[in-house]
Amino acid sequence: MERAVRELWAESRDLLGLASPSPDETATASAVPRADLPPTPLAFLRDHVSPGRPLLISAAATRHWPAASLWPTASYLTDALRSTTVSLHLTPDGRADALAPHPQPEQRPSSSSSKCFASAHVRRVDFPTAVGLIRGSDPDAGLVAYAQQQDDCLRGEYAAVAGDVDAHVPWASEALGCLPEAVNLWIGNAHSVTSFHKDHYDNIYVVVSGEKHFLLLPPTEHHRLYVRDYPAARYVATGKDAEADHQLSLRLEMEEPHRMVPWSSVDPYPASPEEMAAQASSFPLYFDGPAPIRCTVRAGEMLYLPSMWFHHVSQSPGPNGLTIAVNYWYDMQFDIKYAYFNFLRSLEIDDSSSKVGDLEGDLEEKND
Amino acid sequence: MERAVRELWAESRDLLGLASPSPDETATASAVPRADLPPTPLAFLRDHVSPGRPLLISAAATRHWPAASLWPTASYLTDALRSTTVSLHLTPDGRADALAPHPQPEQRPSSSSSKCFASAHVRRVDFPTAVGLIRGSDPDAGLVAYAQQQDDCLRGEYAAVAGDVDAHVPWASEALGCLPEAVNLWIGNAHSVTSFHKDHYDNIYVVVSGEKHFLLLPPTEHHRLYVRDYPAARYVATGKDAEADHQLSLRLEMEEPHRMVPWSSVDPYPASPEEMAAQASSFPLYFDGPAPIRCTVRAGEMLYLPSMWFHHVSQSPGPNGLTIAVNYWYDMQFDIKYAYFNFLRSLEIDDSSSKVGDLEGDLEEKND
Repeated sequence: MERAVRELWAESRDLLGLASPSPDETATASAVPRADLPPTPLAFLRDHVSPGRPLLISAAATRHWPAASLWPTASYLTDALRSTTVSLHLTPDGRADALAPHPQPEQRPSSSSSKCFASAHVRRVDFPTAVGLIRGSDPDAGLVAYAQQQDDCLRGEYAAVAGDVDAHVPWASEALGCLPEAVNLWIGNAHSVTSFHKDHYDNIYVVVSGEKHFLLLPPTEHHRLYVRDYPAARYVATGKDAEADHQLSLRLEMEEPHRMVPWSSVDPYPASPEEMAAQASSFPLYFDGPAPIRCTVRAGEMLYLPSMWFHHVSQSPGPNGLTIAVNYWYDMQFDIKYAYFNFLRSLEIDDSSSKVGDLEGDLEEKND
Repeated sequence: MERAVRELWAESRDLLGLASPSPDETATASAVPRADLPPTPLAFLRDHVSPGRPLLISAAATRHWPAASLWPTASYLTDALRSTTVSLHLTPDGRADALAPHPQPEQRPSSSSSKCFASAHVRRVDFPTAVGLIRGSDPDAGLVAYAQQQDDCLRGEYAAVAGDVDAHVPWASEALGCLPEAVNLWIGNAHSVTSFHKDHYDNIYVVVSGEKHFLLLPPTEHHRLYVRDYPAARYVATGKDAEADHQLSLRLEMEEPHRMVPWSSVDPYPASPEEMAAQASSFPLYFDGPAPIRCTVRAGEMLYLPSMWFHHVSQSPGPNGLTIAVNYWYDMQFDIKYAYFNFLRSLEIDDSSSKVGDLEGDLEEKND
């Protein structure tokens, strides 16, 4: 079975025209197809949506957006959103919706993982306060802030500036035959990272300030992510200063009632050599397999990320100290590709050192 | 594994919106989506090509073709092609490119199948003679004729009448971004049957006279066809009358040099109760699984058959005694669906009574 699955990985990358980049992490070449101009709706459907092939479109795509010149400035957004309350996601280390050490290791069953799935502490603050907390994010001080809310927030919390960007992506809407289900805004800096996951949406991702760095794996490489069930936990604010935004202390607590979340076990950037060795030994299909496809999306550029692709996202801030991005989620088509994916996912691979046993559930959580 | 594959069958039919029709063979309802008018290129790509979903378009699609009124008449084609030489495929029973009893059972290795893959005897005759032989086809007399040549023959042998139909299907060409790779003409009657196979093309099939009856299985149901390697054989003309078209006698001979052809083992319409029992017992995944999707294409109608779909075709003649059809083959896109198909095909299923072991090759032969 493992041989057949490895052949599937190789053939799907080959057919998608996504040559494996060098495993050398310093390689800057991206294997994602790149275009100077947006495609026609027909070409987009035929060459990208139907085959499930990403596309990176150069800065020309968003040059007409008022946001392109306004949002990267130091003060436009804080002025425009001075009296707006937004949802700020707070973690000690910038890793929301990611695995973290179980906060009560003595209470977990001995057979279960030492990790849990940690969600951020979500705090409603005025936008200038949010930006101050994002700019002041410091993992060493145990507080990283990320303004994001995956609930169509650009047209909700951020409606005051929604007119600065296109309400939808015209060529994508025409191709897909619908308008976006959600348009989300993301404001963070280099301390926030989004762990490997996939979305049940066709995604158009636009960077307005700074850069986003994607690691991508096609859906055919599901087994490389070692998706397993983890108990859900959530950061909560603690201590006498729990009401003072700048002096928050966060503690991870298991969710009650108990809830399991299927999530990828793989951390592609382990913090220490010891953790790297543990990851490589536990998850050989990831670390010994073809290199993930790397793609940096710069300010003004658009990435089409097909539904069901696994992605890990890190970021660099622009001159204003912020990474700002907008993404458009379009309902995906549940078709024969989805049926094939579910079939693949139902199969177990025996590899030399690890069992992959995610036969239930899905990565229903929505991120980036 | 068999359970996972059965779930794949059910889910892919469900997602494609192709409810299983009643197993009652007399049911006339077709599960293939039907449209009164041709789709726009975008809707065709989005709703049919990309998901791999067939489409039947009503007679309006070809009403403007001169062929629609001319070809079903008794004499137009024989007049227009009076001096044209065409390729006529001759078999004793109407089954070309199909399994037949091995002609030299004593010479085959004891471990091999008792069947071979039989190709027609191809004879070059003038078109009026071809029509006479087709109309006079008689399995009881051991001679069935079918005018067909899958080499772009409408624009080759039949160029004199090619202008009676559209040179391509405009909305399909625009959607797929190319012109047809081949346009083929098929003239036969009820005695000719095409056995289960698939093509590496997106296929637009148009009936001009009579009706074509399709049994369809999506590519996800590969294992139900029991594709195995069979030794190739070919019908040859024999006897003292071998040069007289109307008194041909055909004999099946093994090809030299020896050649193996991967082909479906399943005959959905066995000739006798004994053969039916043998088929049902040998190929339970076909006979016990979901009913094939039935679709009758009537004169003037168009069927879009997605690439890689398995199809079995039988036919009924029109008032002129002939079934006449034109098909347009468009190059398919080899994408992630194709990689998934090859992965599925590489997996063996253990069922209760039979091993599926086609791990090599493909159904490279092209039919209907």
